[in-house]
Amino acid sequence: MAMSTGSRAAIVILRALSFILLLISLIVLTTNTETLYVAFDTIKIHFNDIYAYRYMISAIVIGFVYSVIQLVLSVCHALKGHGHRGDGGLRFDFYGDSIIAYLLATGAAAGFGVTKDLKTAYELAGIDLGNKFYDQATASASVLLLAFFCTAILSFIAANGLPKYV
Amino acid sequence: MAMSTGSRAAIVILRALSFILLLISLIVLTTNTETLYVAFDTIKIHFNDIYAYRYMISAIVIGFVYSVIQLVLSVCHALKGHGHRGDGGLRFDFYGDSIIAYLLATGAAAGFGVTKDLKTAYELAGIDLGNKFYDQATASASVLLLAFFCTAILSFIAANGLPKYV
Repeated sequence: MAMSTGSRAAIVILRALSFILLLISLIVLTTNTETLYVAFDTIKIHFNDIYAYRYMISAIVIGFVYSVIQLVLSVCHALKGHGHRGDGGLRFDFYGDSIIAYLLATGAAAGFGVTKDLKTAYELAGIDLGNKFYDQATASASVLLLAFFCTAILSFIAANGLPKYV
Repeated sequence: MAMSTGSRAAIVILRALSFILLLISLIVLTTNTETLYVAFDTIKIHFNDIYAYRYMISAIVIGFVYSVIQLVLSVCHALKGHGHRGDGGLRFDFYGDSIIAYLLATGAAAGFGVTKDLKTAYELAGIDLGNKFYDQATASASVLLLAFFCTAILSFIAANGLPKYV
């Protein structure tokens, strides 16, 4: 199937962007810790004490590995330049991008979903983690949401290249 | 574009299933209330006191309205039976189903994400909502997840019917 040079360039740019955004999201989330002073003791709260953030990190890591594989494939494909990919490759792109997009979307949603309500609940419990902890989690979820948009656009591009069979 | 009778029947069944699942999820979530006894007072906790559940309900309602519209269109289309739908209709199905699938997936993720961690946080705050409240929210999110699977499959079917243009 012939694909224009412009389309191929757009795909490589979107894949590179997903890769960078997922890397940023990963770093921002994993470095999110807060030290609590309870009585004479200090407790270190880490992002993975919260289940929703653990799911978020799994989604980011799987998305990141997928984006590395796809980025390598796209660069190879762009360098070869003859524009032929085969229907199997397009099907892999479409289903891969769609499934990863769903994963990233749910990761971001779980992150956003828990942050707002957890802050209120922790405050009721007298646990003040400070705004930095929640803001950093929200920042990570926001960057993850951008990576989702890139992946969703990629799946839409791939869908339009699928052979028509129904 | 010609589509087999089997494909059309599968589409109508999946749309009907989405409709039913979204309706169940909506009822289970909106009837989720719990009465708390604090000192000499009673406080009624309703699902919409939690932001993530509010997002979930918006996702369910939008998905429900979309599924009603699509169900009516599919039934009309199946009854007419001449199998011609046009590329515009297929594009509407594909982008519509994809966007709604993302919405339902994020709704379910926000619901699951908040429930587990909120229970722990509320328990730390001494607020015991009982298992029923959380179980009912999880049940609603699970049914929503099933509705998401139906919609995602519909978007995959539509993708394979799109005209190839890149």
